[in-house]
Amino acid sequence: MANKAVVGVDLGGTSLAAAVVDPESGEILGETRLKTQPELGALGVTERIHRAIVQSIKKAGLKKKQVLGVGVGVPGPVNPHTGTVVNCANLGPTWDGFPLQQELASLLEKLPVTIDNDVNVGAVGEHTFGAGQGSSDMLAIFVGTGIGGGVIIGGKLYPGLRNSSGEVGHMVIAEGGAVCGCGGHGHAEALASRTAIERYIRESLAAGRESIVPALLEKAGRDSITSGIIGEAWDAGDQVTREAVQRAQYYLGILISACVNLLDPEIVVLGGGVLERMGEEYLPPVREAAQQHYINKSEADRVRIVRATLGDYSGAIGAAILAQQRLG
Amino acid sequence: MANKAVVGVDLGGTSLAAAVVDPESGEILGETRLKTQPELGALGVTERIHRAIVQSIKKAGLKKKQVLGVGVGVPGPVNPHTGTVVNCANLGPTWDGFPLQQELASLLEKLPVTIDNDVNVGAVGEHTFGAGQGSSDMLAIFVGTGIGGGVIIGGKLYPGLRNSSGEVGHMVIAEGGAVCGCGGHGHAEALASRTAIERYIRESLAAGRESIVPALLEKAGRDSITSGIIGEAWDAGDQVTREAVQRAQYYLGILISACVNLLDPEIVVLGGGVLERMGEEYLPPVREAAQQHYINKSEADRVRIVRATLGDYSGAIGAAILAQQRLG
Repeated sequence: MANKAVVGVDLGGTSLAAAVVDPESGEILGETRLKTQPELGALGVTERIHRAIVQSIKKAGLKKKQVLGVGVGVPGPVNPHTGTVVNCANLGPTWDGFPLQQELASLLEKLPVTIDNDVNVGAVGEHTFGAGQGSSDMLAIFVGTGIGGGVIIGGKLYPGLRNSSGEVGHMVIAEGGAVCGCGGHGHAEALASRTAIERYIRESLAAGRESIVPALLEKAGRDSITSGIIGEAWDAGDQVTREAVQRAQYYLGILISACVNLLDPEIVVLGGGVLERMGEEYLPPVREAAQQHYINKSEADRVRIVRATLGDYSGAIGAAILAQQRLG
Repeated sequence: MANKAVVGVDLGGTSLAAAVVDPESGEILGETRLKTQPELGALGVTERIHRAIVQSIKKAGLKKKQVLGVGVGVPGPVNPHTGTVVNCANLGPTWDGFPLQQELASLLEKLPVTIDNDVNVGAVGEHTFGAGQGSSDMLAIFVGTGIGGGVIIGGKLYPGLRNSSGEVGHMVIAEGGAVCGCGGHGHAEALASRTAIERYIRESLAAGRESIVPALLEKAGRDSITSGIIGEAWDAGDQVTREAVQRAQYYLGILISACVNLLDPEIVVLGGGVLERMGEEYLPPVREAAQQHYINKSEADRVRIVRATLGDYSGAIGAAILAQQRLG
């Protein structure tokens, strides 16, 4: 390793992970995962992030001075220039305007910190060491509870004027349609996310249709129809789940077509909980719906639509790479 | 003028224009406009383009050797690497696969030629000498019979993998909605173009509503509800026309919001026949609908939505600038 190691942090609503990464190979040299405990508030969680970073450096067998810096992926909009979080719906109101970069750097002493939102960071991870390696222009779309994305242009994260590029989940694709978590109508997130699949299943159950989903929920002791439960019901051939998933695949294809008609990228990388659970099988109907709506149908397969390959690690690795790019 | 002049050609279905441009100032030094006469076929029209170029150079008081090269904006998809037209719906089937760059260069002897599609070229014109001057990341949207666009990233035309970026008219914004000229459903072009306005007016007339549009068509001796007629009926307060235009403004706003949520550009430049006729008054409802659908509502006004300023000249000037960039 010619360059110093970098630490990437993936901050989630349930757990947080810190990984020491070799920026040349993407190899993880040491890793620590802790519960986030959002009830501690922004300062309390920042202390937990600090603890995870220190432990991961120790696990990697390194000293702090052998580390270049730290990147953090935050589940919400941030201002990467000031290092301030705009807000984090999953983590609570103490994060509104929280100066995460400054607070974490002060705990870490002398180690510089950079922050960005989790999907931008995931896009950088997939571009550098995942499915998008070697591409110049890439779009990443992460499908989970919501839908987020990141744009890579000319091999670099394209942040946009207000650091809010890649908000593909809130592109209107069915004007006046289903209500989104943000209050909008007909957004991709309201039609193609795990939440959209869950809503379709619940509405079908409420309409009296048969499904194995209630039994699976009971068995798992869960309230929420997770990607795991969707996958299980799909594998079992549950008709309601099949319809819900096929609808989400169709709308994800429509969303991709809108992005391709605007950007014509080399590659669209699909990640997030739903894709991870459903696997390669999820893609063909998505590709078909997308290509059906391309205005340029020539060489449609040249625009590759593939699955993310870093899984849970895209965030931590991407945050480390951003730290390398910005602090190196 | 330190650099050589460049010639830009704007090839349209009705007329074609060649302009000799000073690439430093954008000043037009000489200009010739001819009828296209598409019935002559691709080779015949190429001879007319050649004639217009030669005349414009003469009008500029220049010799061919004082000209760096020629750029042509074509009303359809092209391959700028091979210099071949993919097709031109407005100009007829002889243009399918036509090697315009090679044929025109052979007529011009020794003067190199580059080609691109008319909206990409228009975007370059507006970026270099029009409303987008000085911006780094810009989206141009031209609203006329159809809707086309061009993407500027980092101050340069962003062509996309297959040279088909900027096809904003065919982004799905109302899945399953109005039928588009391309056969698709719910595309922006089917909802926000001059054609969409015309269709709304015709459907209202067919439903027995009162409007001054039939009288205006008769007075003008026209079959088609042009931007001019739409503007006249709007100015007269015609209720059906008001509704048709307001609907198109709303959907144009939705389209812009989708593009902004993906790209978060510095500026969105709106050109084309409808915007030129309707003027500044067209913008406020478009801006309102767009901003209402931004996911990032903070500093929404920083993403400027403005009218194109080069009017009819954006194509010829943009084609000249592309020639300067590619052949210089």
